Amino acid sequence: MPLLVVGSVALDSVETPHGIVEDALGGSAVFFSYAASYFTPVRLVGVVGEDFPSAHRDMLERRKVDTSGLIIEKGGSTFRWRGKYEGDMSTAETLEVHLNVLGTFDPDLSPKFADTPFVFLANGSPAMQRKVLSQARKRQLVVADTMNFWIETQREELYALLREVDGLFLNDGEARMLTGEINLVRAGWKVLDLGPRFVIIKKGEHGAMLFSHDGVFVMPAFPTEEVVDPTGAGDSFAGGVLGYLSSVPDQPPGQLRRAMAYGTVIASLTVEDFGLERLKRTNRKEIDERLHWYQQMLHF
Amino acid sequence: MPLLVVGSVALDSVETPHGIVEDALGGSAVFFSYAASYFTPVRLVGVVGEDFPSAHRDMLERRKVDTSGLIIEKGGSTFRWRGKYEGDMSTAETLEVHLNVLGTFDPDLSPKFADTPFVFLANGSPAMQRKVLSQARKRQLVVADTMNFWIETQREELYALLREVDGLFLNDGEARMLTGEINLVRAGWKVLDLGPRFVIIKKGEHGAMLFSHDGVFVMPAFPTEEVVDPTGAGDSFAGGVLGYLSSVPDQPPGQLRRAMAYGTVIASLTVEDFGLERLKRTNRKEIDERLHWYQQMLHF
Repeated sequence: MPLLVVGSVALDSVETPHGIVEDALGGSAVFFSYAASYFTPVRLVGVVGEDFPSAHRDMLERRKVDTSGLIIEKGGSTFRWRGKYEGDMSTAETLEVHLNVLGTFDPDLSPKFADTPFVFLANGSPAMQRKVLSQARKRQLVVADTMNFWIETQREELYALLREVDGLFLNDGEARMLTGEINLVRAGWKVLDLGPRFVIIKKGEHGAMLFSHDGVFVMPAFPTEEVVDPTGAGDSFAGGVLGYLSSVPDQPPGQLRRAMAYGTVIASLTVEDFGLERLKRTNRKEIDERLHWYQQMLHF
Repeated sequence: MPLLVVGSVALDSVETPHGIVEDALGGSAVFFSYAASYFTPVRLVGVVGEDFPSAHRDMLERRKVDTSGLIIEKGGSTFRWRGKYEGDMSTAETLEVHLNVLGTFDPDLSPKFADTPFVFLANGSPAMQRKVLSQARKRQLVVADTMNFWIETQREELYALLREVDGLFLNDGEARMLTGEINLVRAGWKVLDLGPRFVIIKKGEHGAMLFSHDGVFVMPAFPTEEVVDPTGAGDSFAGGVLGYLSSVPDQPPGQLRRAMAYGTVIASLTVEDFGLERLKRTNRKEIDERLHWYQQMLHF
């Protein structure tokens, strides 16, 4: 079934120990869409400026990502991020952020998009996320991502969002910040108490944890030897999780775990090259083979 | 089959956010022995001072740990460590160390102990570890642990040890220090190139990785809600791994993974209370139930 994502579309300039790229296509909605496109038809909602190369849109369309919800703002410039990864590359140092047209992003869903059953609200202000959610009139499953900035500045609005969504993605530091709990297992349960049916805590190179009323489930990251650029790992992980969930007829408890495994595998591909480059070179067969290897690895 | 451990026996004073204990029984050989005793008969080699309470030895003997190799040094004092854990408790702050009788520890195996087929050389100087190894004349499997101090100060001796042992345990920071590799997967392969048949990298609350000629295998830590005191987690993990390996008739590749799962489960029990307290309250049935739950968790 179709999957809608609302989030950022960016031009990223990234430096890692493996090299430098300038103005590469990025942003949460892009990484999410590309990853999810291996599982289900994706509908992307975002905004760019007049400087956005049309080749990027064509490339997404070739992956069957419906970009009719990607607005080009007249006279505006695309959101730009410049960052650097050093050492173990576990955290990015942000060198420059230019919100540009993203600063006033106020998405309006077309009737077709508003009917999408699966919805992912990528990182953005909880107020904006709630506004999108209210437009998704045929939603079956809505999952949001968030970040420390919104926990610090819009906590009440975020609480309201958490009462309305089915699932939440956040990273380990954000889970601790949101709940005041240092122990991640306790933090996970506390986030679950705030409303969602499931919570996924992302731990980067250390994997991810799933909390739901069926219990807690922990997955290691895929053992990747060659991390070239971690940008987009979290969003492509979410894309794999939601993409897989959208592609199966129902969601019994076990499906969430399998979905997380798909997300883990997709994220492990993403980090093997800059930006979207590695995801462009993969296919469903390779993804399934890596999933099978991962599944065998965890079997004893 | 019997399992020999050579390592420290300590009186630990520990402060964590959950409380304080003074002069609790600890040390690498103790945590290892106690954990392994749920799987196989254990023989302990260590040294203490005249201040060592005989009740501790009795308690170990009741767990079928043969303490005939525990030397009481006349006029000496037992090794003492005082440490503090704060925040996420991932690392201990050492407040005091008194090596005392451990400073001149020079183990001499009795003929019975020298015939033990399975040997664990807990953290100690590589020179001392090699000396013990040379006495273990009927060894079938020898596994060592090490730490940053020996990597910094006795690297050549450590290299010699690595050519003689079957397996090595070390933590993530030590693996990086030993190999100069930031990426842990690459670091693991590089340690394997130094000689052992398998290498286990411990990542604390993030689990552990196994490297062998059969490939790489990553396991998450058990999702523990109540971490009271992390002291001894790594040594009881090793005790679970080696204890299980000693208890099965042969070591096909898959057994190492199952052994790591047992180590993971034992370590998850250790941290639920101070010192050995939680391990004292467990039994093989509880360990096996937790293993089963963990195995199911990783199945999708």
